[in-house]
Amino acid sequence: MHSVLSILDLLGVCVFAATGALVASRKEMDLVGFGLMACLTGVGGGTLRDLLLDRPVFWVDDPKPIAICLTVAVVLFFTAHIIQRRYPFLLWADGIGIALYGVMGAELARQSGVGPLLSIIMGMMTATFGGMIRDVICHETPLILRKEVYATCAALSAAVYVVLTELEAPREAAVIIGFLAGFGLRAMGIAAGLSLPVYKPRPGREY
Amino acid sequence: MHSVLSILDLLGVCVFAATGALVASRKEMDLVGFGLMACLTGVGGGTLRDLLLDRPVFWVDDPKPIAICLTVAVVLFFTAHIIQRRYPFLLWADGIGIALYGVMGAELARQSGVGPLLSIIMGMMTATFGGMIRDVICHETPLILRKEVYATCAALSAAVYVVLTELEAPREAAVIIGFLAGFGLRAMGIAAGLSLPVYKPRPGREY
Amino acid sequence: MHSVLSILDLLGVCVFAATGALVASRKEMDLVGFGLMACLTGVGGGTLRDLLLDRPVFWVDDPKPIAICLTVAVVLFFTAHIIQRRYPFLLWADGIGIALYGVMGAELARQSGVGPLLSIIMGMMTATFGGMIRDVICHETPLILRKEVYATCAALSAAVYVVLTELEAPREAAVIIGFLAGFGLRAMGIAAGLSLPVYKPRPGREY
Repeated sequence: MHSVLSILDLLGVCVFAATGALVASRKEMDLVGFGLMACLTGVGGGTLRDLLLDRPVFWVDDPKPIAICLTVAVVLFFTAHIIQRRYPFLLWADGIGIALYGVMGAELARQSGVGPLLSIIMGMMTATFGGMIRDVICHETPLILRKEVYATCAALSAAVYVVLTELEAPREAAVIIGFLAGFGLRAMGIAAGLSLPVYKPRPGREY
Repeated sequence: MHSVLSILDLLGVCVFAATGALVASRKEMDLVGFGLMACLTGVGGGTLRDLLLDRPVFWVDDPKPIAICLTVAVVLFFTAHIIQRRYPFLLWADGIGIALYGVMGAELARQSGVGPLLSIIMGMMTATFGGMIRDVICHETPLILRKEVYATCAALSAAVYVVLTELEAPREAAVIIGFLAGFGLRAMGIAAGLSLPVYKPRPGREY
Repeated sequence: MHSVLSILDLLGVCVFAATGALVASRKEMDLVGFGLMACLTGVGGGTLRDLLLDRPVFWVDDPKPIAICLTVAVVLFFTAHIIQRRYPFLLWADGIGIALYGVMGAELARQSGVGPLLSIIMGMMTATFGGMIRDVICHETPLILRKEVYATCAALSAAVYVVLTELEAPREAAVIIGFLAGFGLRAMGIAAGLSLPVYKPRPGREY
């Protein structure tokens, strides 16, 4: 079980690092820029999570996450052009990432004794944070500003995980079902433009 | 006394959460987006403050701040259209927030043994931080870039509080007078465009 | 030796604070805005470094860094117009800063028991972080998006320092050679537009 979680954690780092490298490719950065963006995006959300929970930052004692980020950066620097359309690739990788980190953020928060509601919020905040750093630093439109479901997917992953563990489901199952719920919702957002009702200003009212 | 401070702290969370939700309304986000922006803005400055002071982050052990943010988000999602002009409303709420957090940041820094000057700076930095996150993530012009007094108000709140407590004024009075000083100055900025002399480049000089 | 490192640390704060104040001058801020931007930029990278390493934040117990930032802000508020072209001045100050902080970030990481590779990455991330905050908050183009070498210089400083100390060179020499390597490379970037090969999308491929 422990190793399944570790693997999912590193998978989350990997897909977020890939999105950082893809944004670096859009900005036509050099190899070191790819590495920096892959690291910032790959470990950004988990770093916030660990700082909030007052845990040791997960990549400071363990070279694996950064090694993964750098490997992803090098591979994508030389191969990103093979991908026919990079932006959808980025969206899908980011979608895997937010669903994974939504679960893992909530999981670590629960383990640290944080209550269920706060754990869901913490899952949502840390899942979306790495992508925000990436988009803000690189002058991209943050994905949270797009019309289709986004933050909702991270929140759903975290909420499903928390509810299932409260119901005493096995942790492994809760992690996987939580991930699938969040990623499934995001997939409908990316592929079919699924969105929740948005706030609509009344005509004639000023912002 | 303790409860007065707690209430002011939660009031600060509340008004900043409202500004986050109002920016979410401008960006036509869905309900979860409102919740995320309300949480990020509502607790952002206080989170930075607690990380800097190496204190437990104030909302991780206590569900009240996040519950307030989520409530504000839900209420504004359904009622923001009633507000005739939302941007002035945002400016006033933000003004209350920076004056409150200027005082509370300085107060907690002083209690943690930080010196007077540093406490003032920490009050200013943490008071303005939540709004910076909000504006940067949502592609709004950060309020600090506007011409009228802004950072000055947060600094003034903190400075008045610190000076009064150094003079051994009762803490409650220092908190309230500090808040009123900072908010009063900001009110003159919002309502009358009050500004300090700004840096003016000489003509013919390049940036 | 200790004092040489302390002086270099404060020099790094000083040059980054100057870049923050110069951006404040471009945005025609008032004196307090200069102070806030000088503080955020001057201590931003080192604050991230200390949070990641779970060390006390370097400027919270010591008034010197903030006093330097405020002094730089005041001096530049009244004298920046004397500088014929402020943007190149900003680039050079920032270049000194990233090379210094690349070394100092790696140095503190090594002292905290972080491995060599991670120390290099941490040097690169913390060296570039203050400038990212500055540019993101003030709506400037982050320097990492410019074509010439940038993140590479911070990484090179950190890497040269780490390699030299691994080879048991005297720490003082490692610091100085690391700084000179990173700053020298950045100087070639600023003065001669030196750049590494960048990622080039294939024509006909969409992003």
